[in-house]
Amino acid sequence: MRMVDLIAKKRDGQELTGKEIEWLVQGYTQGTIPDYQMSAWMMAVYLKGMTAQETAFLTAAMAKSGKELDLSAISGVKVDKHSTGGVGDKTTLIVGPIAAACGLCVAKMSGRGLGHTGGTLDKLESIPGLCVTMTQEQFLRQVNEIGLAVMGQSEHIAPADKKMYALRDVTATVSCIPLIASSIMSKKLAAGADCILLDVKVGSGAFMKTQREAEQLARCMVEIGRAHGKQTAALMTNMDVPLGACIGNSLEVEEAVDTLLGKGPADLTHECLMLSARLLMLAGKGSLTECLQQAKSALESGKAFEKFLQMIRAQGGSTAHIEQGEPFLKAAHCIVVRSPKTGYLTHMDAEKIGLAAMLLGAGRETKESVIDHAAGIRLLKKTGQYAEKGEVLAKFYLNDISKQETAQETYLQALCFADHPPVLSPSILGYVNPQGEIELPE
Amino acid sequence: MRMVDLIAKKRDGQELTGKEIEWLVQGYTQGTIPDYQMSAWMMAVYLKGMTAQETAFLTAAMAKSGKELDLSAISGVKVDKHSTGGVGDKTTLIVGPIAAACGLCVAKMSGRGLGHTGGTLDKLESIPGLCVTMTQEQFLRQVNEIGLAVMGQSEHIAPADKKMYALRDVTATVSCIPLIASSIMSKKLAAGADCILLDVKVGSGAFMKTQREAEQLARCMVEIGRAHGKQTAALMTNMDVPLGACIGNSLEVEEAVDTLLGKGPADLTHECLMLSARLLMLAGKGSLTECLQQAKSALESGKAFEKFLQMIRAQGGSTAHIEQGEPFLKAAHCIVVRSPKTGYLTHMDAEKIGLAAMLLGAGRETKESVIDHAAGIRLLKKTGQYAEKGEVLAKFYLNDISKQETAQETYLQALCFADHPPVLSPSILGYVNPQGEIELPE
Repeated sequence: MRMVDLIAKKRDGQELTGKEIEWLVQGYTQGTIPDYQMSAWMMAVYLKGMTAQETAFLTAAMAKSGKELDLSAISGVKVDKHSTGGVGDKTTLIVGPIAAACGLCVAKMSGRGLGHTGGTLDKLESIPGLCVTMTQEQFLRQVNEIGLAVMGQSEHIAPADKKMYALRDVTATVSCIPLIASSIMSKKLAAGADCILLDVKVGSGAFMKTQREAEQLARCMVEIGRAHGKQTAALMTNMDVPLGACIGNSLEVEEAVDTLLGKGPADLTHECLMLSARLLMLAGKGSLTECLQQAKSALESGKAFEKFLQMIRAQGGSTAHIEQGEPFLKAAHCIVVRSPKTGYLTHMDAEKIGLAAMLLGAGRETKESVIDHAAGIRLLKKTGQYAEKGEVLAKFYLNDISKQETAQETYLQALCFADHPPVLSPSILGYVNPQGEIELPE
Repeated sequence: MRMVDLIAKKRDGQELTGKEIEWLVQGYTQGTIPDYQMSAWMMAVYLKGMTAQETAFLTAAMAKSGKELDLSAISGVKVDKHSTGGVGDKTTLIVGPIAAACGLCVAKMSGRGLGHTGGTLDKLESIPGLCVTMTQEQFLRQVNEIGLAVMGQSEHIAPADKKMYALRDVTATVSCIPLIASSIMSKKLAAGADCILLDVKVGSGAFMKTQREAEQLARCMVEIGRAHGKQTAALMTNMDVPLGACIGNSLEVEEAVDTLLGKGPADLTHECLMLSARLLMLAGKGSLTECLQQAKSALESGKAFEKFLQMIRAQGGSTAHIEQGEPFLKAAHCIVVRSPKTGYLTHMDAEKIGLAAMLLGAGRETKESVIDHAAGIRLLKKTGQYAEKGEVLAKFYLNDISKQETAQETYLQALCFADHPPVLSPSILGYVNPQGEIELPE
């Protein structure tokens, strides 16, 4: 087999076989196929697409390129969830405990974020003492004992994806549905769960800006899961506005705690309950109504909150502050951002707001950036709300004041005001069921 | 400027500016843009195309990437010719002397071939003592003195093309009209002539298999020349059958000599006269009829032959054998290939016949292969001719008999026989005039 022939085949719009794709991924991972051939092939994929079959083969080959977790030592239904990423997205910290409280085994490997805020790992690390590095044995034992563990993704998981992603980033081949889908799903397959729930975010703060793109990605990922015998579904959720009121690592943990205690923001609570219900459905726990009821009970009974505390303790973290209802990290400065005009907030550019949070220190600009876990933004007014000129719109928490002005400018640029209230879009935009069919909300 | 943005721009089918293209070619030549970005960009070009404007910019940037020959020291009209390559194509050895005999200044830089036979340089080097390496001063002086010089292409000419071509070769981006056209034309622009005649070969032994592709390439190259103020035209010629009767370096020189003496094969003679006439037209020497007459006179008067001898002497070669009408190289073995059946030869796969010649030692399989200047094939029967079973179809000349059987098998596989004679296609298939218009033969 010659790579140049496989490039030509894809360039001419032909379908590659499973053997060809496996050979190509293996060769690239091992370094016998050079970057310049892989990038030409990926550009051909970008412009000519891949069939569902090819995408499934690619994902399998990427999953097989490294270590694959064997979760068979865990008794019960192993579930996993993945979000395509948004501003203020702390749902894993809430959905994980709810699902575990309902009897599922949540074995989650997570990554670190590049951009507006950290990933789930960074958020968890703002809890004093909490450790996300563990051996496979520790991970399996913890899931068996308390039904919930979140660990850092080993670098041995899907190394092909890591190498391909780095190359896509510099060759303008990132925004390609089959490549995005196989990147995400290769890690999910390697992580070994039986049920996979995907949270595909749509809107100004998400990678997928339109519902159409989001549907394509969601269906593509569900098809991959299906092809590999996994119960897979995708919920499409609104990311035109930041989720909840907090952006920034320790702030988001605090908001997750509030939500687990039943006093979180309505939008966040609703979305977490819907995600939990869909996860329970995938695990065969009943109808949507039944599953939603189970999720609500787990929240209202305090069982989900208890699961969260158990997880923190199991991973070496301190729960003292959380139990006493105190913030466990405090930024040196708090600055208020006031409204420049009177009117209804009709639009927030979530991505820009995320950028403002990053400027305060909450996120990473480059891989080497150090995250300030205390930094972040608390939103006091969100899309649809009315503000008087001079009224406080948000609070900025920060230690390093060097980029504060830029952050404030960026924040204000993200907002639109008008005399009349806007029509608000729903938080749940659609669902792709395990058969790959789209179900739109009524 | 960031390369990733230029890749994205081309990927999305947008037109790049002259500045962007120049930056990209310069960066790639200097090594600040890596292969993996260039290959992604070239795949995007392959699949999205380039406008005439972009192609002209690309060609200029490639020409400017190295040394550009200044031919202003030559008094008179400087002309150049380029063939896209075919089997048995020794036209430069005949057209160059004819044009020089008619008063043009033929300043030709030539390359070495990879494939069935050597390039013009290899053919010339089969003449004892002849040297194709010369300084620019020697080159200019020779053209001024005798109107004709053929030298090896300096590696300082269009280094961007060299690097890009090597990358295209391994990334399945070779067969792309704007990239082929800019590759050829960048070297022609850097070589500095006023008039450029392109011989675009079409058929089984050519890179362009169909008339449609050939027309596209021809027009694209003529447009590039026009955009740079060069008198440029392209003749499309038939390469469904090898040109003339000889394939192989010294054999082709002998056949060129025969043609210059007025006793060459009819197809070769006709094509050389047509090429010469078009070159004379480009140089403003009159109408097609007038120019054809000038070319014929140069041949019939022996002036063209005399020019060829002058060039050989000027470049240190011996003309003794040529003047005495003797072969100057003799292979150790001559093997006859006999017809397996009785009938009309209806088709010859010229590429396969070229491959047979390469197997005998006439061409290079890899860049490192050493050419056997004495090896080659003399065709006794060509498409349209009748052969009895057992009649000699061709003679093989060779020193190394190791691949003789494979060569003979390959040769016979290239032939088709039938009971009725085939309809022969004309040798001249069309012309693209300096305005970029296609003129088809009546």
